[in-house]
Amino acid sequence: MDQKRSACPIANTLDEIGDRWTLLIIRDMYFVGKQRFEEFLESDEKISTNILTDRLKRLEQLELITKEPYGSHPHRMSYTLTERGRTLGPVLEVIVQWGLEHIEGTHP
Amino acid sequence: MDQKRSACPIANTLDEIGDRWTLLIIRDMYFVGKQRFEEFLESDEKISTNILTDRLKRLEQLELITKEPYGSHPHRMSYTLTERGRTLGPVLEVIVQWGLEHIEGTHP
Repeated sequence: MDQKRSACPIANTLDEIGDRWTLLIIRDMYFVGKQRFEEFLESDEKISTNILTDRLKRLEQLELITKEPYGSHPHRMSYTLTERGRTLGPVLEVIVQWGLEHIEGTHP
Repeated sequence: MDQKRSACPIANTLDEIGDRWTLLIIRDMYFVGKQRFEEFLESDEKISTNILTDRLKRLEQLELITKEPYGSHPHRMSYTLTERGRTLGPVLEVIVQWGLEHIEGTHP
């Protein structure tokens, strides 16, 4: 979002991470240490390649992740959380806790 | 969602509240005490009537809010958080804190 909907910290945070997929990518980085495109595709929720591409680009614009080439192939990228991205840890933790306590059938 | 994407508590929580609008309605109930349809429309983010209608219905299905008639008009409804809905308080609080600390120009 280029234009803020309001000055509300909740609204602005939702404009960065308020969708069904973004926090799952951050989860995979934060808790599992995933870094490569293919690794994110393997998660249980089966994110599609186009959504994953879109969200990785957006997360980079938001300075929540950075990418760098890895291995010998120039187009293979490795994605990691920035310092800003890692500050989402407590947000993830409280959501994990809420899900475990209030949605049946969830487990860590 | 009728079908779970996975057993992950984050994925399941996002399927309930992971969009740009739902938590703003819960915010207005939790922090401001708003109850009526018109009150939600007045918030700075200018939610549209069709999105508001959709999200209120969905929040009711999820047993996060309840509605009851108010005043003498049978079609006027008042919406309040259920006990389950109020448990989202800590989730809201940590998001407020993240936004205030990490997104410039936000204020409570």
